[in-house]
Amino acid sequence: MFNKWHHIPEGYGNQAGVMTVAGLPVTELVAKHGSPLFVYDTALVHARVAKTRAALPVNVKLHYAMKANPHPAIVSLMASLTDGLDIASGGELKSALMAGVVPETISFAGPGKTDTELHDAIRAGVRVNLESELEAKRAGAIAMALGKTVRVAVRVNPSFDIKGTSMRMGGTAQPFGIDEARVPDVLATLGQEPFIFEGFHVYGGSQSLNAENIIEMQAKTFDMLEKLSVAAPCSPKVLNIGGSFGVPYFPGETPLDIVKIGNALATQIANRSEQIKAAEIVIELGRYLVAEAGIYICTILDKKISYGETFLITDGGLHHQLAAAGQFGQVLRRNYPVVIATNLDGKTEHKVTITGCLCTPLDRLADRVLLPDAEPDDLVVIYLAGAYGASASPKDFLGHAHPKEIII
Amino acid sequence: MFNKWHHIPEGYGNQAGVMTVAGLPVTELVAKHGSPLFVYDTALVHARVAKTRAALPVNVKLHYAMKANPHPAIVSLMASLTDGLDIASGGELKSALMAGVVPETISFAGPGKTDTELHDAIRAGVRVNLESELEAKRAGAIAMALGKTVRVAVRVNPSFDIKGTSMRMGGTAQPFGIDEARVPDVLATLGQEPFIFEGFHVYGGSQSLNAENIIEMQAKTFDMLEKLSVAAPCSPKVLNIGGSFGVPYFPGETPLDIVKIGNALATQIANRSEQIKAAEIVIELGRYLVAEAGIYICTILDKKISYGETFLITDGGLHHQLAAAGQFGQVLRRNYPVVIATNLDGKTEHKVTITGCLCTPLDRLADRVLLPDAEPDDLVVIYLAGAYGASASPKDFLGHAHPKEIII
Repeated sequence: MFNKWHHIPEGYGNQAGVMTVAGLPVTELVAKHGSPLFVYDTALVHARVAKTRAALPVNVKLHYAMKANPHPAIVSLMASLTDGLDIASGGELKSALMAGVVPETISFAGPGKTDTELHDAIRAGVRVNLESELEAKRAGAIAMALGKTVRVAVRVNPSFDIKGTSMRMGGTAQPFGIDEARVPDVLATLGQEPFIFEGFHVYGGSQSLNAENIIEMQAKTFDMLEKLSVAAPCSPKVLNIGGSFGVPYFPGETPLDIVKIGNALATQIANRSEQIKAAEIVIELGRYLVAEAGIYICTILDKKISYGETFLITDGGLHHQLAAAGQFGQVLRRNYPVVIATNLDGKTEHKVTITGCLCTPLDRLADRVLLPDAEPDDLVVIYLAGAYGASASPKDFLGHAHPKEIII
Repeated sequence: MFNKWHHIPEGYGNQAGVMTVAGLPVTELVAKHGSPLFVYDTALVHARVAKTRAALPVNVKLHYAMKANPHPAIVSLMASLTDGLDIASGGELKSALMAGVVPETISFAGPGKTDTELHDAIRAGVRVNLESELEAKRAGAIAMALGKTVRVAVRVNPSFDIKGTSMRMGGTAQPFGIDEARVPDVLATLGQEPFIFEGFHVYGGSQSLNAENIIEMQAKTFDMLEKLSVAAPCSPKVLNIGGSFGVPYFPGETPLDIVKIGNALATQIANRSEQIKAAEIVIELGRYLVAEAGIYICTILDKKISYGETFLITDGGLHHQLAAAGQFGQVLRRNYPVVIATNLDGKTEHKVTITGCLCTPLDRLADRVLLPDAEPDDLVVIYLAGAYGASASPKDFLGHAHPKEIII
């Protein structure tokens, strides 16, 4: 059985052996829009947000981390579906404002903000998540020069991190946030103009598939925030406790139990101080909300046997989907789930390697996977292309056309 | 001593502690063009090409593999300095033609050429390096439909590869070229119109720093080409024996001895059949000619201590220089050579980590390196940015501005 060790994202159809997205055969999509093609299904995004909200306590707010998929239509959609947008650059700020997002609901995090970025953020009135003592001073000086106030949250580098993920972002020396032990000193400087202290931001790591680990991290986060809130110039209005919700990419991985996380979070909040209970608790998700709602389609151009191995050579590649080729954050390359989207019902198994069209041995979209019959002009679909795909790939590499991205 | 285990590219100056490129202080370049900034020094490219030509036998031709640095000014320069251009996509074909490169000197390799790319290449009259039996058929059919001939070389997947590099591109199952054993059958189909058989292309791997290994590979390549030439429809006019010339990026690596390679190559050619001697022998180089002629400059925005470690946070990052962050082809991340370009004469050693401005733990430009004093507004220079830098990085990631590239 193909992909038997992979979790396959739900919501895609099969029409006489041809994969469909929102009821549309991928063959039609490619005929109309060309290949290679990223397709994002808004219905799947809606469903994922609804499922997430249903699992989380009703009073917990949901933010979208725009970096996961900054396509303008996705940003607009997420602005309507979630309670706020988390941005990471001046470019993302512009995109968010152009998408009509209310500045009050935007938070700007990131370890290296330029003066121009701080200036634009303060002028727009978005919340700045302070990543260092120096950044606090710079933001204050820029706000003073503008004659404006600056809404701030303190990003804390916690003394713990999330277990079991390689993408750790706390508990050790980090470029992100201010070490927990030094936060009280910074808080003491934020009690007066131009600062409007609004709360805290904590991000312990990403891409966890273990609910217990996330629950444990959230408990530690609340412990820490209870202590830090005492030192704050006023009661925190907002506590962004991060996300870390992962999606299964690789063989053997299974979906995260978010109902368990939601239940634990409700209990967690109920047992906390009045100060914590009075604050807006925010969960910040990017990948979790959009990754499975997107696919990457490419077309087989050539099929060749070399030293007994079969290669399906496509018009896609790592210039569009760097992470799927194992070149972004993976230490050992592993395969994303992949199908021959024009032969979903094929029964014969062949071991094949799917490459892109680039002149580099790194350009492997699937390395020795079992798939049914496939010939030139058949379509290959790589799942999980809704996050960190087109925007996180070296699109200019080797001078090929940029991939198209469509929303349906 | 800083970077003591690194080979530092030559040709950059020091003016009272400030790095200079072509005599211009990096501070001036940044003041004029902004930061982050890629700078390519054409004098260093000239010097490298001259040194390479001097080392190689006079009758050996030198080609530039455009993928290494496709900046239009670099392409124009290389078109004037070398004997031909090797391209890898329809986009590179357009760039080459727009740079005024003569189609006769252009070769198009790449495992997944689309019909459109083949069509454009045949119309333009460039040489097509055939990567598979099917591609030969497709190219022939397109040429027939156009009523044109197609100049072809056969790309061979040799039964050997180059030793000692991770970037192997031969000797095993590969998406590149046609397995050596099957080449004679393909050659039998290329003796008539629309094909004009011109020769062979062999590429055993890239980024080798070992002259002996390259010499051995070249000898094996000639052995193979002597045999294959006998089966060719006519004497080969051109034999592209690849490149593989590497540059030292990492601690402990030393420059390649190209004089040794050139001398061995002269002997090699002298001892070969008349058919080989009569052909044009081509060495194809990309990285080797341009990597050391470029630097990436970024500005320190923040300096922070976290858990006792010092972080210098810059306005650059892996969105501009993916390979320097260890996310492109490296299994274990290693540091490129890096300097504080505004404090070259500093004597105090500090262990620091240099990050980009991105909200991801992957964004490390230098991990725990020894460097002199550095403060915000100081400039960081990462060497070896002349190849596979700007064009091979995910420039849209996190929505920052694209880096500027200047030529001096």
